[in-house]
Amino acid sequence: MKVRVGVLGYGTIGARVADAIAKQPDMVLIGVSKRTPDYRAEAAVRRGYALFVPKNSIPAFEEYGISVAGSVEDLLRQVDVIVDATPKGVGAKNKPLYQQFGVKAVFEGGEKHEVAGVSFVAQCNYEEALDKQFVRVVSCNTTGLCRTLGALDGKYGVEHVFAVIIRRARDPDKADTKGVINTVVLDPVSIPSHHAPDVRTVLKHLPIVTTAVKVPTTYMHVHAIMVLLRNPPSNVESVIETFEEAPRIIVRGSREGIVSTATALGYVRELGRLRDDLYEILVLRESITLKGNRLYYTQFVHQEADVIPENIDAIRAITSLSDRESSIRTTNQTLSILDR
Amino acid sequence: MKVRVGVLGYGTIGARVADAIAKQPDMVLIGVSKRTPDYRAEAAVRRGYALFVPKNSIPAFEEYGISVAGSVEDLLRQVDVIVDATPKGVGAKNKPLYQQFGVKAVFEGGEKHEVAGVSFVAQCNYEEALDKQFVRVVSCNTTGLCRTLGALDGKYGVEHVFAVIIRRARDPDKADTKGVINTVVLDPVSIPSHHAPDVRTVLKHLPIVTTAVKVPTTYMHVHAIMVLLRNPPSNVESVIETFEEAPRIIVRGSREGIVSTATALGYVRELGRLRDDLYEILVLRESITLKGNRLYYTQFVHQEADVIPENIDAIRAITSLSDRESSIRTTNQTLSILDR
Repeated sequence: MKVRVGVLGYGTIGARVADAIAKQPDMVLIGVSKRTPDYRAEAAVRRGYALFVPKNSIPAFEEYGISVAGSVEDLLRQVDVIVDATPKGVGAKNKPLYQQFGVKAVFEGGEKHEVAGVSFVAQCNYEEALDKQFVRVVSCNTTGLCRTLGALDGKYGVEHVFAVIIRRARDPDKADTKGVINTVVLDPVSIPSHHAPDVRTVLKHLPIVTTAVKVPTTYMHVHAIMVLLRNPPSNVESVIETFEEAPRIIVRGSREGIVSTATALGYVRELGRLRDDLYEILVLRESITLKGNRLYYTQFVHQEADVIPENIDAIRAITSLSDRESSIRTTNQTLSILDR
Repeated sequence: MKVRVGVLGYGTIGARVADAIAKQPDMVLIGVSKRTPDYRAEAAVRRGYALFVPKNSIPAFEEYGISVAGSVEDLLRQVDVIVDATPKGVGAKNKPLYQQFGVKAVFEGGEKHEVAGVSFVAQCNYEEALDKQFVRVVSCNTTGLCRTLGALDGKYGVEHVFAVIIRRARDPDKADTKGVINTVVLDPVSIPSHHAPDVRTVLKHLPIVTTAVKVPTTYMHVHAIMVLLRNPPSNVESVIETFEEAPRIIVRGSREGIVSTATALGYVRELGRLRDDLYEILVLRESITLKGNRLYYTQFVHQEADVIPENIDAIRAITSLSDRESSIRTTNQTLSILDR
């Protein structure tokens, strides 16, 4: 018996999640939903995805020449789970609809923790989402922080974290008439940024302070991190091993020629990934530095992609389809996620 | 009796130092030296500065139509002090010349500490340079770190610092055919960056780790800093006071509308400063955050300007013209440096 899934909101995250769902052996993608007809809608149809649109949008799609399978309500009637990848705040407004139709829902990081009640990073707290009606996959940055810091906390104990988040200003495929050009914007000026409390929606007791800036780039966030460890290892190799043993973390660096987000893009392209997607958190090998109980490292987070596997695992968790380990294994295999 | 000063290398730093020297009541600018004729050389002549050029460059200047006052050797014969603002590494090559002519010299941060033997930030270690033949003004980033961390160390004691340096990739007025575009470049991947040991050439025992990235901007470096304090104050106001009492540190932020390097540029322009020069380190008020003995803050460093007052004070220190306090006071008054 496969889980029937629908995707509401077919943008940066929604399109990727739909592709990932279509690859899962235990899921069926019933269809996707979109408000406006455009190249993405065409691509969805080309991929064979049934397109469900708001009733008042049907004429616009017909005029564009895209055939529609039904309304959003039609989609909701056919699914067990909705992945709500609508813009920030819209998920909260959609929630009553999911309650009305009795479907489970996966929300994204743009929604507040309270909308779902459970915030989720598969390798950190899969069990917390088991059989719940709602779950929230945290944002790309929070996911990246949780993956590496969760691994470190599990192995060595984390006493304090200071992370500086250097954010790409905009996604590579977005239109923008203003935007961050030739400046570093404090986002916000005050410390901590929202990332620290957001990490604690997953890793409840992690003592972390974050600060964030936006810079004029489009691909990948950069995290410069200092961690105070309770029981530090004696050498950096142990830390590398801890990262490599954890799911969805890879360690790369100067050896492979990766010294910037641009060279990381080159690396991902050579992996043959659709849409330049790096699902894994890339920790820079030569950045990993241990001084007593203080660990320093730098990591790259692909803002469009790292949460995609979490969405798949979140679907399995709330439907109790499988346990953490086998869900992560299936997701990783189907998405060709690197082991280490 | 005024100190006779010459400036060798009339670029980003040299031109600014020359202007600053010309404003000092106890110094005479004998002249400046430049290798190639261009708009800067014209501007120097327009300002009334005598131009001394390498012997083999004299024909090029004459052809350009710029009259030359003499050779570099002619300049060296007339000065007590040379400020060597030549490109990185050239200062070390020039040093034997200064020894031969018996002139004192101020080197810049592009040179190694060993070239001068004393590295200098006026408010941190003025006395160390007194009566020396050579002194090195440290780089813009190191100067920025030393100013605020020196103030904190003097007041509260610093046990550990982690600073993330988000560097502008290029100066606003430089030509570049490649450069950092739409990427964050780790500079370098390994931790620490050279800034940490460089800070310790001035603040000898400061326990500091730094990491640096380059981003596609041209105006100002951004420092995100965490400091572990030995005897922390009870509130942020005390930290603000410590910064404001120290020379060449100003505290600004959202209140004034300064939330990015771009809005900081707007602020500096309204100060009426030539060449958009911010001599002061700008600490962002709302970023100053105290959690127990951990202090977090963000600061802006204008890479072209913050070392200019240090050059003036360095001249006074090595010629024993005055003590620290009166030198800083005179420099600040003549350059209209803000008190707080």
